[in-house]
Amino acid sequence: MSSEFGANIRVSVFGQSHGRAIGVLVDGLPAGERVDMEELLAFMARRRPGRNSLSTSRREADSPTFLSGLKDGLTCGAPLCAIIENGDVRSSDYDELIDKLRPGHADYTAWVKWGGRADMRGGGHFSGRLTAPLCVAGGIAKQILARKGIHVGAHLVEVAGISDSPFPLSPTPELFTQVAEKAFPVLDDAAGEDMKAAILKAAEKGDSVGGVIECAAIGLPAGLGAPMFDGVESQLAHALFGIPAIKGVEFGVGFAAARFSGSQNNDPFTIEENNIVTTTNNCGGILGGITNGMPLTLRAAVKPTPSIALPQRSVSLSRRENVELVVKGRHDPCVAHRAVPVIEAVTACVLLDMLYDYDKDKPGNLTQEG
Amino acid sequence: MSSEFGANIRVSVFGQSHGRAIGVLVDGLPAGERVDMEELLAFMARRRPGRNSLSTSRREADSPTFLSGLKDGLTCGAPLCAIIENGDVRSSDYDELIDKLRPGHADYTAWVKWGGRADMRGGGHFSGRLTAPLCVAGGIAKQILARKGIHVGAHLVEVAGISDSPFPLSPTPELFTQVAEKAFPVLDDAAGEDMKAAILKAAEKGDSVGGVIECAAIGLPAGLGAPMFDGVESQLAHALFGIPAIKGVEFGVGFAAARFSGSQNNDPFTIEENNIVTTTNNCGGILGGITNGMPLTLRAAVKPTPSIALPQRSVSLSRRENVELVVKGRHDPCVAHRAVPVIEAVTACVLLDMLYDYDKDKPGNLTQEG
Amino acid sequence: MSSEFGANIRVSVFGQSHGRAIGVLVDGLPAGERVDMEELLAFMARRRPGRNSLSTSRREADSPTFLSGLKDGLTCGAPLCAIIENGDVRSSDYDELIDKLRPGHADYTAWVKWGGRADMRGGGHFSGRLTAPLCVAGGIAKQILARKGIHVGAHLVEVAGISDSPFPLSPTPELFTQVAEKAFPVLDDAAGEDMKAAILKAAEKGDSVGGVIECAAIGLPAGLGAPMFDGVESQLAHALFGIPAIKGVEFGVGFAAARFSGSQNNDPFTIEENNIVTTTNNCGGILGGITNGMPLTLRAAVKPTPSIALPQRSVSLSRRENVELVVKGRHDPCVAHRAVPVIEAVTACVLLDMLYDYDKDKPGNLTQEG
Amino acid sequence: MSSEFGANIRVSVFGQSHGRAIGVLVDGLPAGERVDMEELLAFMARRRPGRNSLSTSRREADSPTFLSGLKDGLTCGAPLCAIIENGDVRSSDYDELIDKLRPGHADYTAWVKWGGRADMRGGGHFSGRLTAPLCVAGGIAKQILARKGIHVGAHLVEVAGISDSPFPLSPTPELFTQVAEKAFPVLDDAAGEDMKAAILKAAEKGDSVGGVIECAAIGLPAGLGAPMFDGVESQLAHALFGIPAIKGVEFGVGFAAARFSGSQNNDPFTIEENNIVTTTNNCGGILGGITNGMPLTLRAAVKPTPSIALPQRSVSLSRRENVELVVKGRHDPCVAHRAVPVIEAVTACVLLDMLYDYDKDKPGNLTQEG
Repeated sequence: MSSEFGANIRVSVFGQSHGRAIGVLVDGLPAGERVDMEELLAFMARRRPGRNSLSTSRREADSPTFLSGLKDGLTCGAPLCAIIENGDVRSSDYDELIDKLRPGHADYTAWVKWGGRADMRGGGHFSGRLTAPLCVAGGIAKQILARKGIHVGAHLVEVAGISDSPFPLSPTPELFTQVAEKAFPVLDDAAGEDMKAAILKAAEKGDSVGGVIECAAIGLPAGLGAPMFDGVESQLAHALFGIPAIKGVEFGVGFAAARFSGSQNNDPFTIEENNIVTTTNNCGGILGGITNGMPLTLRAAVKPTPSIALPQRSVSLSRRENVELVVKGRHDPCVAHRAVPVIEAVTACVLLDMLYDYDKDKPGNLTQEG
Repeated sequence: MSSEFGANIRVSVFGQSHGRAIGVLVDGLPAGERVDMEELLAFMARRRPGRNSLSTSRREADSPTFLSGLKDGLTCGAPLCAIIENGDVRSSDYDELIDKLRPGHADYTAWVKWGGRADMRGGGHFSGRLTAPLCVAGGIAKQILARKGIHVGAHLVEVAGISDSPFPLSPTPELFTQVAEKAFPVLDDAAGEDMKAAILKAAEKGDSVGGVIECAAIGLPAGLGAPMFDGVESQLAHALFGIPAIKGVEFGVGFAAARFSGSQNNDPFTIEENNIVTTTNNCGGILGGITNGMPLTLRAAVKPTPSIALPQRSVSLSRRENVELVVKGRHDPCVAHRAVPVIEAVTACVLLDMLYDYDKDKPGNLTQEG
Repeated sequence: MSSEFGANIRVSVFGQSHGRAIGVLVDGLPAGERVDMEELLAFMARRRPGRNSLSTSRREADSPTFLSGLKDGLTCGAPLCAIIENGDVRSSDYDELIDKLRPGHADYTAWVKWGGRADMRGGGHFSGRLTAPLCVAGGIAKQILARKGIHVGAHLVEVAGISDSPFPLSPTPELFTQVAEKAFPVLDDAAGEDMKAAILKAAEKGDSVGGVIECAAIGLPAGLGAPMFDGVESQLAHALFGIPAIKGVEFGVGFAAARFSGSQNNDPFTIEENNIVTTTNNCGGILGGITNGMPLTLRAAVKPTPSIALPQRSVSLSRRENVELVVKGRHDPCVAHRAVPVIEAVTACVLLDMLYDYDKDKPGNLTQEG
Repeated sequence: MSSEFGANIRVSVFGQSHGRAIGVLVDGLPAGERVDMEELLAFMARRRPGRNSLSTSRREADSPTFLSGLKDGLTCGAPLCAIIENGDVRSSDYDELIDKLRPGHADYTAWVKWGGRADMRGGGHFSGRLTAPLCVAGGIAKQILARKGIHVGAHLVEVAGISDSPFPLSPTPELFTQVAEKAFPVLDDAAGEDMKAAILKAAEKGDSVGGVIECAAIGLPAGLGAPMFDGVESQLAHALFGIPAIKGVEFGVGFAAARFSGSQNNDPFTIEENNIVTTTNNCGGILGGITNGMPLTLRAAVKPTPSIALPQRSVSLSRRENVELVVKGRHDPCVAHRAVPVIEAVTACVLLDMLYDYDKDKPGNLTQEG
């Protein structure tokens, strides 16, 4: 089940970059949920390539066709399948790559695994293009969550070593919307300009840069999750590491917690309007794998795009000798900004999935007549 | 299935810190595998408390009793169950805590989830004590992997901001053994002395510190794993975040990759003794979710022990008012060093589980007469 | 995960017949559920051997020890583990069997699978004895379901070709209790006497007989289950076929439906006290994999005990030659009557598991502010 | 995951009868497997409606379009998605049914579950039409199995009480092919003529009939499966009960075993050409959940088509009153003969899935250097 995640709401992604279509199958969505197509397309547009000088010139409508699961614009209980046909494909760009392994890509590992039978044109099933159907599933999950008062937002918190301001202790839905509407998803536009300059500078050199995305979810009930391996961190990390190019995931202050003392890191409890809250949120809203009602926060590291124009050292599979490789084709000097909605999408799917289990093992939940 | 992980080899942990026993059930182990009890107990001793001045004074034999799954010292195919009886328990230390929430612990979230029915004495099922049965499963997995030439090792790469040397590009089984035999698991003993000093200093102040663990696996075949959500990173992160106190997981250079350029981060391929290897290992041995034959490397952030002797701000559940809390009982000023074998254990279980799927979808695997 | 079933409430059985202990791990039970020990032991007594002349003379207290998951007699949210120590074991009875394969048993298939490493003393992990821990889990599930108004009952509907009356169209909890309290679980005691006579007659000849168990669940809400592979039939059959000796499972009229015409088999709808009910229940309360509110009914076929005293044709594994086998040891001439509570137990576990998913994908379920 | 089955090879079915398309997603197929399209279409033709006077007049090309997972006619390791567009749809036939519940269909249970949001036109996701994509997955699985020497075949063993000859003790691939090539899939054509006459007679009366399908798999290695809940019977029954209209599943002699004595039912072992075989096959090739190398045999009961032309008693959902219902539209007087390839398809998918786990826990399997 390599390309699937979720227990209650199962999201399965399929397709190869240069195949006939890519798509997503979502099994388990509640019936009767309206899918606002305009909102969904606006969400998907946030990851679309070709919007500005920072991205690949490959143009894709990326408009999903729904084959099943909807009736009159509402989910009907049956599994939802949406596909995106692959239009603008130039496979010849990739011909040379079949023998020369691209550093930083899955060319070699896919070859070892599938013995040359893999369809690696354009990265095949490993392509970042597979994040488009993830955004279909995640965009729908975000709409369902929002109706329940749960909002998921993200921004670029770091690119090429340049930092954006982090989300405040109490982020708002409005803040999420503001960032989402920006062409470059940062809180501090001045930092954003510096990031863009760094990306363009890398592009000029034929190189690329990476970044870090911060994501938050607000409105989650306390008590979501479970101890140990079904905890919030376990489930989110499992899905987030499935996104191509993600190499690190942390919650709350994450790795920085390792440098804190306990007295700094522990979030003190206090009463606020008769609710139990914490005065800091170093734990990212999660204790013992379970939400505490504070904003859930996480960060994911996106590695620099492995496709660069600079010549690279590689090997020839057939001749077993060292070669120089120059990757042609259209590539992004940075994918971190386009990955922002993808992180939101995957986070939203996981949280929606987990909400199905919320309350299930609360005392009395199953035992009162009802 | 909150306390279970694995698809082929399922590891289920049970028990509460102050209950009758804790234990582990391992379903799916191959038959005929010898369990070297001496080696297993030596492995478990590495996480045992009470070894030195750095750890809680709670004494536990932690010696597992095997109820099933073994015959004449060999696995017999049937599920293996091992339990550890809870001996040295002083529950009265925890009486006050039922009402006063300990910051940084799961007291509040467990209370929200289970409405006061949770057995939170000593941290209950959330206790770090549950890592002992994890080490039973992981110690057995390590023995099986070692017979196949796969070795898993780990060390403390950072405590309180003090860094140990990282694993070299090509770590050896001997290096792993050396570190495992040390009372304080670091590569650079001078750094280790500084770390110990920092831990003791925190302890004197009634405070605690955290750390970072680096883990590596060598001897893995290339081609292990799968694209997207069943990738090596996804499966390892899922299990590692199930260990109490882990707040961040990264592979290879991890978050640092976000600050690299693509030309720095890409690992160049080269031919070495007719094998395809890379000259650096920034990807931690994983590309596209699949191993490339280089050492698998990961780091996990351990937060500072939340139980500290310093007075803390908290709330009373019953009175819904702010209170000051002083946590009594026996606590470690740092758990990162004791977590080193736990990270190894969980990593070993996940890798053994994944090896079952190795080759399964290779061409011809199922289609040649056998 | 060979010895585990369930998605939300996972039941894992472990142990070998002549090992140290057998037991069950139940993960996912709601917190705060009282376990009535007296009731549980009474339920378990229904499958216990040695009650009368019809059963093996092996005596087992079969009294479970709870290692985890309970606090003050209530479930505490953490995984529940209960074990039963193996007392009265006479392994020498089985010595000859290591080489001579017992027809109808798993001796040969276990040997092929585990290459001689299996612990097959007394049937090992394949033994009917493993149904005792299943009854611990199922007995608890039955108590939880009963508090919700859902009752599961079963009886022997056929032994050696002799039929008991089937459950009426609207069975009651009282009827279930009546049957459960009988030493021989039938509705029609005259039929029961005939069955017992047939069992004793087979026993005298050194032979054995099989039977069919009918099980019903009442009080289930309509709308439980899902289309296709997570339907009620799929989930129940999956678990029921995991019970040793079960060779057939049918729902409603089952195989007889194949001989009905559509006009006979379709259950007409009618309004009764403003509820939608059916005037017959040929579908066993399930349409399209989903409950319709009528009693759920199923039947399971139990094969005759393979251990018989008559000489049998077999082979010697080591010598690869035909041999005559005479099975010694203590054996039941029929296990069908002892399997009645086991069928109830497994059915109750599956239904409790499925209730967790009830309502989850109903319109509005996740989208109203809570 | 209601519409999905399989652990290693996951088969997910999607679509509604009158939606845009139906389809199947298969994740986990080995790379490099050729899909013979001609053979696949021939297999699918066996379940297609409109072939003769016995079936609905709905005409469907049922020709699948492959969106992903294939390259140059071979599987490429990535998930395979195939869709079938819905062409010949006459939804108006079903307008009345939205309020009047069809007995024997899922109309009522789907309405309870999804509160009126279900797309029940033509049976929606519950339609027998969803078995077409199952045949795409199963047809591919059959091709892969055949290359490994494993063959799956089935026939109608009973219709309306008329019996076909059962499969012989040692069925051959040629026998399976012969039956598959017949327009009416029976071994004994005289019995087939009687069955067809019974079907036509029911059709004339506006009624319908059911049947029983016998399926066998030959060439399976001994040792496939596992004790208890991952046994062959458990996994096959789980998937088979997911097929619409299946109400009973039995293995070997199944329910008849309950009427046998142990001495009759036990299959004696004997040596044949140095192999261990049994002289009878009452167990259907499965002991303790594990294959013994004899042919695997099972039977599945298909209920009579619930859509009949005769007037039926029903209720109006909106008015909560009894009504008479006359179902219009095109319906089969029997679906059992069309279900024969579907049973083969699902059986093949499950067996291919299980083969992935074959050998995995054999001694030495993971521990020898590879």
